[in-house]
Order: sequence, then structure tokens, then C-alpha cells
Amino acid sequence: MEGKIRIGIVGYGNLGRGVETSIQQQPDMELVAVFTRRNPADVKTQHPGTPVLSITDASAYKDQIDVMIMCGGSATDLPEQVPRFAELFNTVDSFDTHAKIPEFFAAVDRVAKNSKKTSIISVGWDPGLFSIHRVLSEAILPKGTTYTFWGKGLSQGHSDAIRRVEGVKYGVQYTIPSETAIERVRSGEEPELSTRDKHRRECYVVAEKDADQTKIAQTIKNMPNYFADYETTVHFITEEEMKRDHSQMPHGGFVIRSGKTSEGTNQLVEFSLKLDSNPEFTASVLVAYARAAYRMNQVGQVGAKTVYDVAPAQLSLFSNAELRKNYL
Amino acid sequence: MEGKIRIGIVGYGNLGRGVETSIQQQPDMELVAVFTRRNPADVKTQHPGTPVLSITDASAYKDQIDVMIMCGGSATDLPEQVPRFAELFNTVDSFDTHAKIPEFFAAVDRVAKNSKKTSIISVGWDPGLFSIHRVLSEAILPKGTTYTFWGKGLSQGHSDAIRRVEGVKYGVQYTIPSETAIERVRSGEEPELSTRDKHRRECYVVAEKDADQTKIAQTIKNMPNYFADYETTVHFITEEEMKRDHSQMPHGGFVIRSGKTSEGTNQLVEFSLKLDSNPEFTASVLVAYARAAYRMNQVGQVGAKTVYDVAPAQLSLFSNAELRKNYL
Repeated sequence: MEGKIRIGIVGYGNLGRGVETSIQQQPDMELVAVFTRRNPADVKTQHPGTPVLSITDASAYKDQIDVMIMCGGSATDLPEQVPRFAELFNTVDSFDTHAKIPEFFAAVDRVAKNSKKTSIISVGWDPGLFSIHRVLSEAILPKGTTYTFWGKGLSQGHSDAIRRVEGVKYGVQYTIPSETAIERVRSGEEPELSTRDKHRRECYVVAEKDADQTKIAQTIKNMPNYFADYETTVHFITEEEMKRDHSQMPHGGFVIRSGKTSEGTNQLVEFSLKLDSNPEFTASVLVAYARAAYRMNQVGQVGAKTVYDVAPAQLSLFSNAELRKNYL
Repeated sequence: MEGKIRIGIVGYGNLGRGVETSIQQQPDMELVAVFTRRNPADVKTQHPGTPVLSITDASAYKDQIDVMIMCGGSATDLPEQVPRFAELFNTVDSFDTHAKIPEFFAAVDRVAKNSKKTSIISVGWDPGLFSIHRVLSEAILPKGTTYTFWGKGLSQGHSDAIRRVEGVKYGVQYTIPSETAIERVRSGEEPELSTRDKHRRECYVVAEKDADQTKIAQTIKNMPNYFADYETTVHFITEEEMKRDHSQMPHGGFVIRSGKTSEGTNQLVEFSLKLDSNPEFTASVLVAYARAAYRMNQVGQVGAKTVYDVAPAQLSLFSNAELRKNYL
């Protein structure tokens, strides 16, 4: 076996921690260091031996790191960091601001083509695995409808909205795909469904002492944009229950293509995820695509890429001959 | 738009008919001709204008056909035909004798590399889409177990076995995935399951007049290899019911990867198909991969390939920029 693929992590929040853990499961990879904007001495890593360095020292690792996994946020970190890092490193990121993907792709592509590096952008599960399924299933079944359902999953934006309601001490919100809607889609009926038809919202709230729970529930349910248009339930729980039952970050969802290959012949293709930890799973997808970025760069496939440009074999630990023999 | 991708079909059984129908749904493709071993005048196509020619005339179409979709059987047709056709054409086939794939790949690869053609072998849903999911989900979740369930689907071999039982006039057998087993897998438990644990068998039988139904049912249920080890049910129906309810070829199945990204953190990735027509769906997969074979050949990716070598973008009607903007 050749040397291991040497990985760096830029940014050490939930996603960076997930990447650190995921690399331990990949026998062909090693983690060189975590790069942070914080004081490295203040960062406590999951795994004792992980070196933590200042992000300003990253360029010195140009020849010691094969792929940088970029774990910053999409709003401001990634648009600034990815083009900068692509000057020196192959990169993988999870940029997920759908509307800005073409612009982000162009910026990264310009740099990476020039530096002869490979940058796979917008990796994860949506965008990412779900994107692959939308394209794959539509290529196979051109006549049909694709449905994306999200959840059961914790929504940060909606949880924040709950916490702004007067009398709420803590609150979390789960987006839950509507079973009725999923069943209608699975039946081959091809119904027209809005995001609202496809999901309901479940809220868990710890109220302040003496707060009016009925009023809190009404305020939440009537909140425009966030809840008013949805079937919303509000559960009041204790602080202990909140800590015990709602500190994980579960998520998941479904991509369903319902198509017809001829009159009356329904064909259903479904891809789904049920994740105990959204950041750990997203991190695991990034790590598998880091392997692809490394390999594509080795054969001169440089510039910005997306999951659409990556063949399945590039992601696997195994050789093409092993894949044909054992997995096909 | 450039000219359409020109397709030929070799072999005109259920799969060939499915390909003929599927091409009608793809705006960038046209069907040039069906090639058959039978007397072309005896072949009645689904769509009136489809030209039917003798397979012995195929070589004359070397410059008129971009991709030949090989629709013969895996036992004897494909091992003989695909290497022969790869001398003159890009090809796509559904070779599904798992144990012989490496040997078949090598034979096709030798010819196609030499003729500078692209041959994508073993395309369909298993091998094919299911194979992709086994590799993709294991690359992302290296610690875990992958489960493949088949069905609900008509099994030709088991249906034949039923029809050999004395007193049976007609019979069909459906392989049905065990709901209990699927639920155990979905729970994240990672149970050990044999093929037998994962499936049950349902038989529909038209008995000869005056035949002993109890004896027929016992003979079927006790048949070694085929039924004895499985939970098997036998339903007796009329000849009319057989024709009305059991003339379709439904199939489907599930590939489920249950993995852990850290202690106690379960992650579940599931891909499933529910198909009204197995041959029409398999045909639709072949047609999408014909597009990839054509494009890969255009950029010099010659030789034998599998679904593991094909990036999602190669399958789609849309450009990379359109995919990034509208599907990512």
C-alpha cells in the first residue's frame, strides 16, 4: 500500500469534529492537523493526539497535506476560504447556499484550474447524495416527478424562532415528513405537493416558570412563514427532559422519483437517510469525497468539481478489480 | 443541439422491447434499428416505424449507430455477442452472472481497448444501481453492514419449479422481502440474516381439474433448495385470475447500509425500487448508460467499463452547468 492520504481540517465546529472522528474509520487516511481561527491552545479535540494549529500557519503545510476538508459555514467562511485554500491544496467543502452555487463554483474553479488543484464543492447529503439521486433517477425515468422530503430533523432556524417567543426558556423544532404525503407519492399517483403539504412541525418547549403555556403555543402556531402554514404541535417538557432527549442532531429525508416507462407502468426509485447525527454523517460524506479529490488530482482532473463529476469507484477504498469481483 | 445519439438494439425479447419504448422518452436519442436472429419479417415491434434487420447485417451499420444496446441473455448470448460487437460499436449490456463478471470484463476490455470503443458491462439494477449503492454507502460508512433484499418480484426459476409439480397447470412465484427482517435492519440493530431470513415465498397456482390441492401445496412447500427452508404460502386460483393478476413482471428490492459513525450513533442509508415492470426499468437504466457510453467514447475513455466508472453527470440529458444550477 502506498502512503496514506494526508488530511487537514479547516474549522473545528460540529462538522470538523465529525471529520476528525470519520477519518479514524478510513484505513487509507491520516489526519495531519486541525486549523482554527481560535487560539489553538483553547481547542480541545475529540481524539487526544490531534494537532491543532492556527489557520494562519496552514500554508506551511502545502506539501504535508493532500486534501483540506473545509468545515466552515456557508454564509461567510467558505466563500472566502475555499478559493484561498484552493491555491495551495485540494479541497472538499459542504457549501450549501443553493442559489449561490454557480457563482461559488466559478470562483473556486478559476483558482483551482490555475493552481492545478482539485476542489469538490457542495458535498454532503443535500446538496450531495440527494443531488445525485435527483439526477440519476430522472436520467433513468425522464417521464415522472421527483419529490424531496426532509426530516425527521432538527431545524436550527425554526428552533431559534421558538426561542424568541416570550416565556420560552429553551426550545427545539423538528421538521417531520408527512407520512400521508409519502404514501401518496409511493402509490405512484404523482400528486402536486408544496413543501407545506410534505412536512409537519413538532416543537418541544421548556417554558419559563409561571409563563402562560397556552399563549406560548398559540404564538408559535400562528407565527407567519415559520409555522402558520404548517400542521404544528407544541409539547411542553422539563429542562431535564430537554437535556436528556433533545441534545442530538438527528436528520434525514427521502428523495423519491415516481415515473412511468409506459402507459400505466409505474416505477418508483427511492433513496432515504435516517441519521442519528447530521454533522457526523455529513462529515463522513466529505471524507469519502476527499479520497476522490486526491485521486482525481493524481490523474490531472483539476479545477472545481461537484458530486456529479465523481464516479463511484473514486470514492471506494477498493480497487476497480475488487469492486467488480466483490460488489457488482 | 448536436445530432441525436443513434441507438441500435441487439436482441428483441422483453428487454429489447423495453429499450425500444424507453428511447421514445429520451429527447436526445433515436433508434436506428433492431437486430434479430429471427427472420426480421416475423418480428412485430411495439412501435410501428421501428426497422427490424438481421443480426448478420449489423456490421454494415458501423457508421450509422453510436451505441448498441445488447439485449440478449447472460448465459450464452452476451458472452459471445458483446466481445464481437465491441469490435465495431460502443456497447451497453446487462450481463448478470455475478461469478463470471471478471472474466467477461477482461474479454470485452481486450477487444474494446483495441477497437477504441467504450463498452459498459453489467448495467441494470442488480448488478447496476444496487451495486453503486453497496459501494457508495460503504465508502461513507466503513463501519457497518450492508443488506440487500429482493422483491416483491417474480422469480422465473421458482415459477418453473412449481410448474414441474404434478397436478399444476400454471404457477408463478413471488419472492417477498420479510417485513420483520427489514424492520430489524432499519432499527440499526445490524442483525445477522441469511437470504432465507430475509425473504418469504408466495406461490399462485392453477391446479389441473381434480388434482389434489393439499398434496400440491405440500410438495411445493417441501421442495428442497427452492422452498423447504423458506416461509412459503401457496394460493390456488383460477385460470382467469392467473391471466388477469399475474401476467406482469413486477420486481424491486432494497439495499440498506446500517453503520455507526461513532459509539451509539446509528446512520441508515437506504435505496429501494418498486417496479411494475422489471424489463422496462432495466431497459431504462441501459438507455441512460448508453448516453454515458457515447460521451465517454467521445473523450477517449475507451475499453470495458462498469457503473463504478460512470460519473452521474455522464447519465444526464443536462449540461454540467445546468445540473449545478438546477439539481445540486
